Amino acid sequence: MSSASTGSINKIGKSTVPRTAICTSDEHSITVRGEDLCHDLIGKISFTDYFSLLVTGQRPSNADRMVLDATLVAIAEHGMVPSVQASRMTYAAAPDALQGAVAAGILGCGSVILGASETAGRMFSEVDQQAGPTGDLRAAAKEVIGRWRAAGQPVPGYGHPLHKDRDPRVVRLFAVSKEAGAGQRFVEIAEAVEAVIPEVVGKELKLNVSAAIPAVLLGTNFPLRGLRGVPILARTAGLIAHLCEEAVNPSGFALSYQATRELVYEGPAPKASAR
Amino acid sequence: MSSASTGSINKIGKSTVPRTAICTSDEHSITVRGEDLCHDLIGKISFTDYFSLLVTGQRPSNADRMVLDATLVAIAEHGMVPSVQASRMTYAAAPDALQGAVAAGILGCGSVILGASETAGRMFSEVDQQAGPTGDLRAAAKEVIGRWRAAGQPVPGYGHPLHKDRDPRVVRLFAVSKEAGAGQRFVEIAEAVEAVIPEVVGKELKLNVSAAIPAVLLGTNFPLRGLRGVPILARTAGLIAHLCEEAVNPSGFALSYQATRELVYEGPAPKASAR
Amino acid sequence: MSSASTGSINKIGKSTVPRTAICTSDEHSITVRGEDLCHDLIGKISFTDYFSLLVTGQRPSNADRMVLDATLVAIAEHGMVPSVQASRMTYAAAPDALQGAVAAGILGCGSVILGASETAGRMFSEVDQQAGPTGDLRAAAKEVIGRWRAAGQPVPGYGHPLHKDRDPRVVRLFAVSKEAGAGQRFVEIAEAVEAVIPEVVGKELKLNVSAAIPAVLLGTNFPLRGLRGVPILARTAGLIAHLCEEAVNPSGFALSYQATRELVYEGPAPKASAR
Amino acid sequence: MSSASTGSINKIGKSTVPRTAICTSDEHSITVRGEDLCHDLIGKISFTDYFSLLVTGQRPSNADRMVLDATLVAIAEHGMVPSVQASRMTYAAAPDALQGAVAAGILGCGSVILGASETAGRMFSEVDQQAGPTGDLRAAAKEVIGRWRAAGQPVPGYGHPLHKDRDPRVVRLFAVSKEAGAGQRFVEIAEAVEAVIPEVVGKELKLNVSAAIPAVLLGTNFPLRGLRGVPILARTAGLIAHLCEEAVNPSGFALSYQATRELVYEGPAPKASAR
Repeated sequence: MSSASTGSINKIGKSTVPRTAICTSDEHSITVRGEDLCHDLIGKISFTDYFSLLVTGQRPSNADRMVLDATLVAIAEHGMVPSVQASRMTYAAAPDALQGAVAAGILGCGSVILGASETAGRMFSEVDQQAGPTGDLRAAAKEVIGRWRAAGQPVPGYGHPLHKDRDPRVVRLFAVSKEAGAGQRFVEIAEAVEAVIPEVVGKELKLNVSAAIPAVLLGTNFPLRGLRGVPILARTAGLIAHLCEEAVNPSGFALSYQATRELVYEGPAPKASAR
Repeated sequence: MSSASTGSINKIGKSTVPRTAICTSDEHSITVRGEDLCHDLIGKISFTDYFSLLVTGQRPSNADRMVLDATLVAIAEHGMVPSVQASRMTYAAAPDALQGAVAAGILGCGSVILGASETAGRMFSEVDQQAGPTGDLRAAAKEVIGRWRAAGQPVPGYGHPLHKDRDPRVVRLFAVSKEAGAGQRFVEIAEAVEAVIPEVVGKELKLNVSAAIPAVLLGTNFPLRGLRGVPILARTAGLIAHLCEEAVNPSGFALSYQATRELVYEGPAPKASAR
Repeated sequence: MSSASTGSINKIGKSTVPRTAICTSDEHSITVRGEDLCHDLIGKISFTDYFSLLVTGQRPSNADRMVLDATLVAIAEHGMVPSVQASRMTYAAAPDALQGAVAAGILGCGSVILGASETAGRMFSEVDQQAGPTGDLRAAAKEVIGRWRAAGQPVPGYGHPLHKDRDPRVVRLFAVSKEAGAGQRFVEIAEAVEAVIPEVVGKELKLNVSAAIPAVLLGTNFPLRGLRGVPILARTAGLIAHLCEEAVNPSGFALSYQATRELVYEGPAPKASAR
Repeated sequence: MSSASTGSINKIGKSTVPRTAICTSDEHSITVRGEDLCHDLIGKISFTDYFSLLVTGQRPSNADRMVLDATLVAIAEHGMVPSVQASRMTYAAAPDALQGAVAAGILGCGSVILGASETAGRMFSEVDQQAGPTGDLRAAAKEVIGRWRAAGQPVPGYGHPLHKDRDPRVVRLFAVSKEAGAGQRFVEIAEAVEAVIPEVVGKELKLNVSAAIPAVLLGTNFPLRGLRGVPILARTAGLIAHLCEEAVNPSGFALSYQATRELVYEGPAPKASAR
């Protein structure tokens, strides 16, 4: 197994060995995070617990699991939103490749819509550090929001086009977090941000589900850097359901037709000389 | 509901209205499959149950859930397989777009590797129909495999490069299915196929996890057309874990470097006149 | 650079070295298909010529280039078709990741819409072989179409929802192919298929652009297996134009709104007990 | 144009009509940017010209075309780089969906690697504005780089792991730009940045191809916001060539095998109790 290099090397890759702490396997067993997949995990642990184990390296506590399940259920499905439309149109055009239609839907989990969970989580972390263990959360929130707005960044996770009051999913997620006995620090931070927004932004913007997700998850063992994964995993479940429906009850091309019924072409008319 | 067409219509979309039975919402509530998301589901149902509800329209039985959880856990992670490598390399090149790296990984859930679950499920369904309620499963399996091979199609879900004996995940999934009290019809069909393969194909090919998944799921309420969704959802969880690791302990470019250390260029040498 | 294997090997990858004939590079030069990128290609060859060189290993003749340019221009853009809508919706949701929005659009180049070029090309190849050097093309076409339909496969590349006559792009592509002096064999085959369709299928279906593309390209040096790449590359150009427009004149969410204005929810009503 | 809303509306989409200036069509013609696709464009214009027309709304001048062709040729292919590996691994796993493998490769055109073209272009624009019509470019460059570094942003488009001297593609692109008679303002800005980097950054970092592309394109009619599209379109051509090779001379799984030959598992060992 010696390696005679040919000179045609990809130097973008560093001359180091790849490493992972997630999984290894041999002919007889698969080890995941130090547990034997077949003996310890399959049939003994739920998919939510396994997701938590994969990401964090540890099995979740009851509170961790309750909150993670609640966030995944809260964000998996909200009807024919743009990413679902994109996915169903893609499936209609390429029905042999279900994975491509799911991928097209996931690609809409970006900074504007579902990615706001992670951005809100980072903002809450800044408030947490700004306040320190004993500081006032509202003062810290005001400071951080001011900084974000000065840098031209919107306040992520507040306001919703449909839900003018606090999004009902927010109320429920906070209740689950409390019932579960999860940490309430980031829920308090999220509420402090909501409280100071009118003063800093000049209008009320209520907490939406994208802010509630980090608010409750950061009170569990789930890491900040995994936050964007939660809406992605959740929406994948919703997308698969939509694509199963699309396979027998297609709407992809109908959506596309409806979308352009009133389309306005505002480019130049064809030149007369063209004919 | 009339619509004055502007002439610039997308005729690919049919002139029909899109329809869905999955979700609707108004300002105060989100209804999924007839259940109120906030009152009935968040905090009251696991993500696996919700995935089942989304896809099938009904809450799973205990057996349905146990089997679905077991399949999701079995297939979510198997180390640095090609789709994980593709995902980690994509993340290394585009770390701002986690969704893109997940999508790149999902795009490898194709016909050769993870898509075999669905194809095996379709083969088992053919055997089921060929045999009818009282027919001999081995005879039906022989008939169907012969037909598939005559049409140039490989037998999906049998044989594994690493696990020469029956894949340990197969043994475990079958045990879970039996413990759960799920239907055993398709497990029996899968074993009938395994039994007749030597005769038809000319060598032993043991059941692998891609055949075990449809074998156990088709004994629950999970539909044939949703089968490819199971490895896709499961792998999404594994990919997110790998990308969380990649973010702090990068291997993407190291994998790329290692991959090409012995790369052979076998094209024409540059023409001398080039200099 | 010795390699101490750890036992945790990805056996899915075969124990062979990767090989390529496309490109190699060292610190001072990049060689593509035996040509020095900087000395021979940049500034001396068009992008179309380079695409042809990359795929085929040889510079195109004038006829090859004229036909390839014509097909790329013919298929790059057709307005707000489903894949463009999917791409613009994805960009609206994730504007930081242009590559993700392009990818979402490309994922709609599937078997139903743009992938038909390749499938039609394979059908024409079968007719070519069926007829042999001197056989009657219509008889061969009838034989092949009959076979495809018996196997449950549609005839790819014939019929168009908007263009009931022969698609004007077809007429133009055939004229360019003739002017360029490219091979006419596959144009004749495509017309033979069109001529026999009424007899075999029971109704007239005129050649559409997806059949015209392989008909003209297979008369050049462009290979059958690269055919699906032509609409993919072409549409990438169109998608980039749409996304540049979307960045300053957004329509993605407006398309999504319009698409669901008449959406019918046909699932169960929320249970009364939900409240 | 009234529409009786059903209440189940996607409010994420704004209540406005979608608009486009790119393309419209009716049963007899397709109009692109005011030109008749079949009469004016197919067979009369190269793909590069068409890409320019699609993006900018105008046909390119000779200089515009020469520079655009040169950049597309320069960036299309650089061997088995990470995004090509990701694409070939994806194809190996899902060979039925060429579009998915291309998409996986495009998803690696992100901020770290190919997206740097756009970022460098934005930096050059800032220098242009900072200097104004008569200001000193080096002083302005110093000011802007200082600002970017103060904000924690790297200087995009300078330095290359393989090419320690100025990347040969840079030299060639600048020569083509000058020969073509394209605007030299942004080439001068790019060189001013290179000149002041040692002073600001503390080491020499030579212009690489990602900075050369905006430097030459911003001297043509090509818009800043389209810059990221250039490497994406170019790489799509390279990816298609690699996938055509992969289809007959597969390396995807071999790359994956090689990548993990020295993989180190550094997670916990399986618990003894697992067996």
